[in-house]
Amino acid sequence: MTHNPTDRIAASFARQAMMQTFGASVIHVAPGAVHIAAPIRDLATQQHGFAHAALTFALGDSAAGYAALTGMADDAEVLTAEMKINLLAPATGERLVAEGRVLRQGRRLVVVAADVWAENGGARSHVAVLQGTMVPT
Amino acid sequence: MTHNPTDRIAASFARQAMMQTFGASVIHVAPGAVHIAAPIRDLATQQHGFAHAALTFALGDSAAGYAALTGMADDAEVLTAEMKINLLAPATGERLVAEGRVLRQGRRLVVVAADVWAENGGARSHVAVLQGTMVPT
Amino acid sequence: MTHNPTDRIAASFARQAMMQTFGASVIHVAPGAVHIAAPIRDLATQQHGFAHAALTFALGDSAAGYAALTGMADDAEVLTAEMKINLLAPATGERLVAEGRVLRQGRRLVVVAADVWAENGGARSHVAVLQGTMVPT
Amino acid sequence: MTHNPTDRIAASFARQAMMQTFGASVIHVAPGAVHIAAPIRDLATQQHGFAHAALTFALGDSAAGYAALTGMADDAEVLTAEMKINLLAPATGERLVAEGRVLRQGRRLVVVAADVWAENGGARSHVAVLQGTMVPT
Repeated sequence: MTHNPTDRIAASFARQAMMQTFGASVIHVAPGAVHIAAPIRDLATQQHGFAHAALTFALGDSAAGYAALTGMADDAEVLTAEMKINLLAPATGERLVAEGRVLRQGRRLVVVAADVWAENGGARSHVAVLQGTMVPT
Repeated sequence: MTHNPTDRIAASFARQAMMQTFGASVIHVAPGAVHIAAPIRDLATQQHGFAHAALTFALGDSAAGYAALTGMADDAEVLTAEMKINLLAPATGERLVAEGRVLRQGRRLVVVAADVWAENGGARSHVAVLQGTMVPT
Repeated sequence: MTHNPTDRIAASFARQAMMQTFGASVIHVAPGAVHIAAPIRDLATQQHGFAHAALTFALGDSAAGYAALTGMADDAEVLTAEMKINLLAPATGERLVAEGRVLRQGRRLVVVAADVWAENGGARSHVAVLQGTMVPT
Repeated sequence: MTHNPTDRIAASFARQAMMQTFGASVIHVAPGAVHIAAPIRDLATQQHGFAHAALTFALGDSAAGYAALTGMADDAEVLTAEMKINLLAPATGERLVAEGRVLRQGRRLVVVAADVWAENGGARSHVAVLQGTMVPT
């Protein structure tokens, strides 16, 4: 039994094999906002050596989904109904950080957004924006 | 030097580490249409044991991107500018098959779509639709 | 009381002032598919004299929404939760025809798509594709 | 010849019959940001008497497009390549205000976003978010 969002999200996250495959971790949880980070590993690159769009998508989608979960009942789970991603720049550097947030917490639908940043040394660049809908299950 | 689309796509695909991570393979290439399949491996699941939305996205996005590439010059590469996915049903079964196609082959923008199916035994179910934009690089 | 989809859609359509403003009419109703047509009037053009993207959107969105309604109970209404449009070509000619269809008729969410065509003389060109989500109200 | 963004946008806006049909006006222009407002007139409502999603779309899309135009050369024009809207709440009240902004000003593609608000008395509610791509013509 988990009574706070941070524990619930950690428990759910640990069951997502895909997040382990990418070496991702939850780095911030607040009501309506969750941040997830992952290194840009060779296993998740595309033909130019940049992070694959699917990694950027995976992190943004997950950060947005867990942001939605912070506003739901303790035993809720959440699924992505739809998600749109616009890629702003090649995702290159040491790691990606996805910042998910809730735009509207409805009972049947939760509208969410996420920004994804690539970090390299001390700098970070904005690599993607996502906008979508989560549904409780 | 690769003079036919099948060889060019195979060469590009082999350089996408993410596609190897997922065990994906190109199963069909025709002008304006590329199909990609991948098993639903444990490493690509989410918290309910279904294929993670990021796997469904990865396959649909790649099939659509390579479909766009079939209509470009021999030395072209392609990047996803934006992609939207609607998830229709949980992705469960033996493997996923993504069927990408070109809706409009422009010089600067290629509008693409993809359907993703989950196969289980002899049956298949429609698990996602994608619609997006590819740009030559 | 309206017991068949065609009557229900006609009744709902008649209450949509926006559709009257555009001179739109329902030209086809079948289970999971509705087509809507409208002339390209001066009042709905953009700065180049083509049909405004908002007209194309309005027709595609409405055709998709009414397609969703064909699969619902007699007293249901439907709202757009989200919709994405990709514009394929300038919308020029005599009239636009939007063909909406249901991709998945869920109880809480209906995933829909639409194609929009511009007709000119005997020819027609594909001007837009839409993909979105309708919810019963 | 128009040498500042405000004049160029006013000139382009005046040629958009659709914007006149809706009684829309440009209320704010800054580099990378344009706001457009319109009353919720009977002619632009849907079957429940709320503003039609196509009005909300039209204003958000136009605000985003003109925001993109502020970062282009004097003689440039802009077209919507794709746009996605998530509707957050029914659009009811006196007028709608759409706030468009640039997320990435590329040479070939401009990624944009917009928020749409419904104003009623002194209050305003968030009715929609848009995310899309503009291309110079």
